[in-house]
Amino acid sequence: MSPASFYANVPRHLVAVDCIIFGFEDGKLKLLIIKRKVDPMEGAWSLVGGFVQEGESTDNAAIRVLRQTTGIQDIYMDQLQSYGDTDRDTGARVISIAYYALIRISEHDRLLANAHGAHWLSLHQIPELIFDHNKMLNDAMARLRDQAHFHPIGFELLPEKFTLPQLRNLYEEIYQRPLDKRNFRKKILAMDILEKLEEKDKSSSKKGAHLYRFDRLKYDALTQHGLVFEI
Amino acid sequence: MSPASFYANVPRHLVAVDCIIFGFEDGKLKLLIIKRKVDPMEGAWSLVGGFVQEGESTDNAAIRVLRQTTGIQDIYMDQLQSYGDTDRDTGARVISIAYYALIRISEHDRLLANAHGAHWLSLHQIPELIFDHNKMLNDAMARLRDQAHFHPIGFELLPEKFTLPQLRNLYEEIYQRPLDKRNFRKKILAMDILEKLEEKDKSSSKKGAHLYRFDRLKYDALTQHGLVFEI
Repeated sequence: MSPASFYANVPRHLVAVDCIIFGFEDGKLKLLIIKRKVDPMEGAWSLVGGFVQEGESTDNAAIRVLRQTTGIQDIYMDQLQSYGDTDRDTGARVISIAYYALIRISEHDRLLANAHGAHWLSLHQIPELIFDHNKMLNDAMARLRDQAHFHPIGFELLPEKFTLPQLRNLYEEIYQRPLDKRNFRKKILAMDILEKLEEKDKSSSKKGAHLYRFDRLKYDALTQHGLVFEI
Repeated sequence: MSPASFYANVPRHLVAVDCIIFGFEDGKLKLLIIKRKVDPMEGAWSLVGGFVQEGESTDNAAIRVLRQTTGIQDIYMDQLQSYGDTDRDTGARVISIAYYALIRISEHDRLLANAHGAHWLSLHQIPELIFDHNKMLNDAMARLRDQAHFHPIGFELLPEKFTLPQLRNLYEEIYQRPLDKRNFRKKILAMDILEKLEEKDKSSSKKGAHLYRFDRLKYDALTQHGLVFEI
């Protein structure tokens, strides 16, 4: 059979990308969500999503959809997984490929995102999302927790300089449970990826808390090779 | 905009599923591959794959394609990830969702699979596969190694009763490096998922090697909760 005739009789499908964009602000892990602009479920809260076009890779579709929908660009997205149940979208049969990213909220134009109808909500405030988007969020959180077990985490979420309590706070948000202060301090310092600065953050106490930053080379090496980080 | 008109103008895509089926036999991790029956690349080696039909979830498509193509059924497949580059299939733009599974080769009809043109090859013998299928295989192997770090592995691959050398052999195949015998023994016994049997396997020595089997309850509990297994 020639390729053309072989492919001609195969059914084709709508394929979407959905983006799970995490940020970290005011000690909270936040998710970027948007009010859906089309029926069905116009006006309901949704992940940032759109359709894969012809001649466009799914990776590029995710980048384009995020930029067009929120103005956010120049970020790296990882694929989470695809969602292929026939009834997951109430408007039509749509196969969706979910992507996720960790970004610094302050490095992107929040007003531009807001003007697009996109908002950063803390995980505890996430409303019911359309279709299977809450499941996608839960799956992405599980992936984050798995990653945090094996790789350093935080470079993409924290400001360049941060305190140990801020870093612990981020891990607490990811694991969704409180962590012992001393134990966390001991384990994170043992990873040998932090550079202690002379500078202190005096915003929360007179004595102040030392600022740290990631040693990028050591951080990247651990990201590549992995480590076991049990906290 | 009404749902019908909104969806009507969106481009549709061919969506395939590809199945990465691992087995373990004669001390080797093996992969099920098949000779492609259609152009382009008719006759070339390929993962087991096919197209998602209308009204069929992608999970069900993977199950159907595997059954129709090899006769293998009643197995559990996990999703690996999707592959969405525009030029990955040389015949047409096809988005593929890859699934993987670990199965006991002996529990399935090998002759039926062979009659379909499907064959079990050890990982060291895998030829060049079509399209991006070698990449899919590498990604699946990386996933297996990640899983083995956190969860017990082997229940789906080993016979019900097995020796410690057989289990170590499986881990060596997954990690693709030799493991220290004593160290492996110590660590695997510390996981407390094995039940030591009175019975011995005398096929490789007069003295024989003790047979073990997995304690299913403990195995399942560890699969659920995870553990860190560094070897």
